[in-house]
Amino acid sequence: MRCLSCTEKYDVAGTCKECYEELNETEEELKSEIDDLRAKVAFLRFWSPLDHHYPGRPIVPGFTDVALVASSDEPSAGPAVPVPAHKALLVSRSPVFRAMLENEMEESRTGTIKIGDVSYDALRAFVNYLYTAEACLDEQLACDLLVLAEKYQVKHLKTYCEKFLVSKLNWDSSIMSYAFAHQHNAKLMLDSALSLITDNMDKLTTKAEYVDLVEKDPRLVVEIYEAYLSKQVNTAAHKDSSPGL
Amino acid sequence: MRCLSCTEKYDVAGTCKECYEELNETEEELKSEIDDLRAKVAFLRFWSPLDHHYPGRPIVPGFTDVALVASSDEPSAGPAVPVPAHKALLVSRSPVFRAMLENEMEESRTGTIKIGDVSYDALRAFVNYLYTAEACLDEQLACDLLVLAEKYQVKHLKTYCEKFLVSKLNWDSSIMSYAFAHQHNAKLMLDSALSLITDNMDKLTTKAEYVDLVEKDPRLVVEIYEAYLSKQVNTAAHKDSSPGL
Repeated sequence: MRCLSCTEKYDVAGTCKECYEELNETEEELKSEIDDLRAKVAFLRFWSPLDHHYPGRPIVPGFTDVALVASSDEPSAGPAVPVPAHKALLVSRSPVFRAMLENEMEESRTGTIKIGDVSYDALRAFVNYLYTAEACLDEQLACDLLVLAEKYQVKHLKTYCEKFLVSKLNWDSSIMSYAFAHQHNAKLMLDSALSLITDNMDKLTTKAEYVDLVEKDPRLVVEIYEAYLSKQVNTAAHKDSSPGL
Repeated sequence: MRCLSCTEKYDVAGTCKECYEELNETEEELKSEIDDLRAKVAFLRFWSPLDHHYPGRPIVPGFTDVALVASSDEPSAGPAVPVPAHKALLVSRSPVFRAMLENEMEESRTGTIKIGDVSYDALRAFVNYLYTAEACLDEQLACDLLVLAEKYQVKHLKTYCEKFLVSKLNWDSSIMSYAFAHQHNAKLMLDSALSLITDNMDKLTTKAEYVDLVEKDPRLVVEIYEAYLSKQVNTAAHKDSSPGL
């Protein structure tokens, strides 16, 4: 028989013509749905007040009614450049901003929201994401944004950063990633890091980061061993229940 | 051979195993992309100032800074209920609102935008769409929103309404739809209506709407005949070039 798709001859069973055509139709429908959704995203993507705003240049107004300021403890830092935004948008994206701005708190009265322990660049990327659902991540920025997303309860951004960090996960960074994920309740990242660590237990105790972690937060190390043990028990149970073993 | 998909036996060629698996994988990838896009849409979907706003009830503020008012010529209409909105959002969705609000025009100064020839319900649905990219359409509302989308250059909404109206197209409404599409530059709808009409030319001249259109706007009728003629010429050319004829 000759395959309708690749036109090569084949003799191991594949699909019948009807199923092939059905799969093809499904693919067309899915692609069309993707086109629709992309257009919807492009429409809903909010014009960001940062599109025309660079430090040192005057801010294009765009009806902004609030400014976010990165407040750093470092005395060497110069005067902070405010990042303009719209209250209505912040409120719609984050329940923390909602509580802050809808109740007559200091931020609402002054029109300034101070964001602690964050660089200007990370704050700018954070605000930009709230408007556009887009960010150009590297590992540092992904960590910074994950922390902000956790603090201001922006779930979509947190997931976005977690997925990126999981894709960059490797043995060298696994302990650091595990501790970071633990600290910021990043479940997806935590599971991935833990799985990577428990797959390499023979190399674990020689790692400098491991020794550090035992020193600083031994409970986290206990959790690694517990996960390893649970994995072993599960594997054993699976073997026992497998037919023919 | 037995189909890997439906498990039935088959003897007319379909796809080989590799292509079947590849198609399956593609389907999984497309579905995962759809999930991502849906989450993005849910995130970007703006909290609408209308979510908690019904006529007669106080407007929840939500930092709105402009109001749209349906201005009707009918003297029987009561005082118009304003639809609250955010300048920044209107500006980001429509180049017409942008020009209106970013230049010091009357609307910008007064904070009120009058929208002519529209019902309160249509205006409300229009504003809601700008925030959410969603509308619960019937044919009347789709026509009203298409007119607004054309006027305020909201392409995404126009396409949305056109697709809905095309899906509802039938012989009874074809002439009206054709004239409406013509008036509002709705190309997709125009082509569909024209195609439906030219497929039923034998019934055309007996329609009351046809007689009306000849009276009111004969140029549109000429365009129907021109499209019909062009279709005939194309069909004839296609027949001539077909092999074996």
